[in-house]
Amino acid sequence: MATLYNRLAGHDVGRLAALSDGVFAFAMTLLILDIRVPDIGAVHNERDLWLAVLALGPRFLTWLLSVLTLGIFWVGQQTQLNHFARADRDLAWINIAFLATIAVLPFSTALLAEFITYRTAMGLYWLNILALGIEIAASWTYAVRKGLIKHDAPQGIERAMYARVFIAQALYAAGAALCFISTYWSIAFIIAVQLNYAIAPGWSFWRKRFGGVRTASPPRAER
Amino acid sequence: MATLYNRLAGHDVGRLAALSDGVFAFAMTLLILDIRVPDIGAVHNERDLWLAVLALGPRFLTWLLSVLTLGIFWVGQQTQLNHFARADRDLAWINIAFLATIAVLPFSTALLAEFITYRTAMGLYWLNILALGIEIAASWTYAVRKGLIKHDAPQGIERAMYARVFIAQALYAAGAALCFISTYWSIAFIIAVQLNYAIAPGWSFWRKRFGGVRTASPPRAER
Amino acid sequence: MATLYNRLAGHDVGRLAALSDGVFAFAMTLLILDIRVPDIGAVHNERDLWLAVLALGPRFLTWLLSVLTLGIFWVGQQTQLNHFARADRDLAWINIAFLATIAVLPFSTALLAEFITYRTAMGLYWLNILALGIEIAASWTYAVRKGLIKHDAPQGIERAMYARVFIAQALYAAGAALCFISTYWSIAFIIAVQLNYAIAPGWSFWRKRFGGVRTASPPRAER
Amino acid sequence: MATLYNRLAGHDVGRLAALSDGVFAFAMTLLILDIRVPDIGAVHNERDLWLAVLALGPRFLTWLLSVLTLGIFWVGQQTQLNHFARADRDLAWINIAFLATIAVLPFSTALLAEFITYRTAMGLYWLNILALGIEIAASWTYAVRKGLIKHDAPQGIERAMYARVFIAQALYAAGAALCFISTYWSIAFIIAVQLNYAIAPGWSFWRKRFGGVRTASPPRAER
Repeated sequence: MATLYNRLAGHDVGRLAALSDGVFAFAMTLLILDIRVPDIGAVHNERDLWLAVLALGPRFLTWLLSVLTLGIFWVGQQTQLNHFARADRDLAWINIAFLATIAVLPFSTALLAEFITYRTAMGLYWLNILALGIEIAASWTYAVRKGLIKHDAPQGIERAMYARVFIAQALYAAGAALCFISTYWSIAFIIAVQLNYAIAPGWSFWRKRFGGVRTASPPRAER
Repeated sequence: MATLYNRLAGHDVGRLAALSDGVFAFAMTLLILDIRVPDIGAVHNERDLWLAVLALGPRFLTWLLSVLTLGIFWVGQQTQLNHFARADRDLAWINIAFLATIAVLPFSTALLAEFITYRTAMGLYWLNILALGIEIAASWTYAVRKGLIKHDAPQGIERAMYARVFIAQALYAAGAALCFISTYWSIAFIIAVQLNYAIAPGWSFWRKRFGGVRTASPPRAER
Repeated sequence: MATLYNRLAGHDVGRLAALSDGVFAFAMTLLILDIRVPDIGAVHNERDLWLAVLALGPRFLTWLLSVLTLGIFWVGQQTQLNHFARADRDLAWINIAFLATIAVLPFSTALLAEFITYRTAMGLYWLNILALGIEIAASWTYAVRKGLIKHDAPQGIERAMYARVFIAQALYAAGAALCFISTYWSIAFIIAVQLNYAIAPGWSFWRKRFGGVRTASPPRAER
Repeated sequence: MATLYNRLAGHDVGRLAALSDGVFAFAMTLLILDIRVPDIGAVHNERDLWLAVLALGPRFLTWLLSVLTLGIFWVGQQTQLNHFARADRDLAWINIAFLATIAVLPFSTALLAEFITYRTAMGLYWLNILALGIEIAASWTYAVRKGLIKHDAPQGIERAMYARVFIAQALYAAGAALCFISTYWSIAFIIAVQLNYAIAPGWSFWRKRFGGVRTASPPRAER
């Protein structure tokens, strides 16, 4: 009977997506709670307030880092789920582990923000990203092997998925290794990699829009 | 292979909507956490409690301001998403940036609540609103140029969207500029603009309902 | 052009439902944050811990009160939304006001928990419930008058909705008035009314199940 | 008229699922808030930080316990909801009670983390799990008796559901009873049971993948 339950449990990709959106949305919003409003006792004029806000700079840096991390893994997991024809119990649990690791990110971020010059904090942050990469690769591997991928998924998607994860993780590892020079180098490198990932594909669009000549307005999408 | 990933990533408008609803819902609920229950040590009778609650007035003012801001941008983004036939990776990232800026609003609100007489706090709050306006305009521009808009979107919708954003942002900028007289003027002006936006279209409905004569009951909606 | 925007904005009942579920879910989870774990310094043995947990009793009382309040208004709003064929901009704003009032409930609850013997705290809690009742009635009135109700809504639904809201609000007002005797009477009365609302319809089911004889197993639902 | 309202209220399984996903997502994310970043004043070098993070070990243990608990009940409730053809008002309320009990879990977890050697804390945690088991069994019993199950649910599903809940609860009770030896035994036993539940069905898959020979690539899923 336990077998029957296992066969029935966790089939709904939509529910998995909804749980994921909730966890990502909450994690993204929680990050800001770590940036505290300056203490009113120490602020006596506009200039004090400016300086107090500027002093929050490192925290906004780690905030930006984690928002980008969340965005990248949200886009990645969404792309996966879109190609799943269905889920099963084990796939659901791989994704629960993934979401639990996402839920740890606000902690890793707070630790890095508080101890921004410590290699230990940078190393733990990197372990968090590494765990996310392993889980998302495991989710894909499992779904491919179990035949849970949609019939109409394009050719080459399997390798494209792995390539994406492995290249990104190699860059994160390189960035993390920079902490032996300075943790700021690590953070700057990883943010640069992530911004490149997030912005690069759209860059030519905006450059054309503001710097070039349009020749024809593009067609509207067919529904 | 990275190109294939880029072509496949971020296509699902529904997931974008779900993530957005999550972020807006948490941001709206987080705002209240900034309003602390009065300290029990300072309250000895009913009158003390009344005064302590009344002293929270300015915080409820900034709370109202931010609830209205969230409502306006939620309605605006929802209207956009409803007219997208599909999304792509870049559109997803523009909207992630928009949501990250929404997630900053509880911080800006707390800063303004704590430093309500400081022009710096008002200016930063305005920058938050300005960033939201730029991002929502960028999202629309991108979708129009890339042909992601639904085929059946009504004529004139493109200009209506821009007009809405530009008029609103002009009013917000005017309101923020009032902080050189007093930040309370800024807040009052922006709340008035937002209430006008939120309530005005429905005003005639309620005036008729409570102050006038009904002539015929309206038809039920065809499905 | 503003008119065109107004005609297009806020049409999606599904998004309204998703935002609502987010706000309700977060409010329900936030309530527990108000119940703090006992201070470890004051606990030296198992008995101390038992007493410390028992001392949290009044906070669990206000927690139960607010969970029931949230449940009742969630069921009420869901029933409304299920019968809306579509929404419009004004209906969206009425519901945003409703959700903002829901988001205030954790504050009202914390205030009542901290000042459980104060009529002022009870009165403000009641005002919160009253505002929710007014907003949910306004939402229904607006939708009915504007013809946004589904064609296939059953006869008599309009009056049933009003009757539900008015009877409940009358009972809440009566409960709140009991605070002139004791706020505990108010809380007990309102919890009793709410439990009656939540449990009563199902009571006969469970009594039959555990206390009586079953005669035939009921048919499965046709899809 | 109240009867009409009762007949109409709470019918939407989709809304119930969305509310559930919200509550589970927040509860999962809230758990991490209980793990505080070490105090910067007590950390002077990398080694101090390592030791301070290691000292958080017991809190990560209770965190893991509760993430597994949430995952198990999320999968369980999702499996139920997937087989409901529709809901009604009473079923909605049983599930609201279930979700309120889920929302208490971060409190029970924090209590256990703070008082990890106290049988009282372990006992209260177990009561929380027991209440979840009772509520999920009540939800299933009610739906079966009222004929709310989908027509195409497989034979034997009713007994499989009960078997799952009763076996799991028996193991939880056994684990909780171990607290009379040591609460750490209780926690370790329950985590082992839960990990077995979560991982065991997929274990053979991963063993084959990394330790064995693949013979043929499996077919893709038919849509």
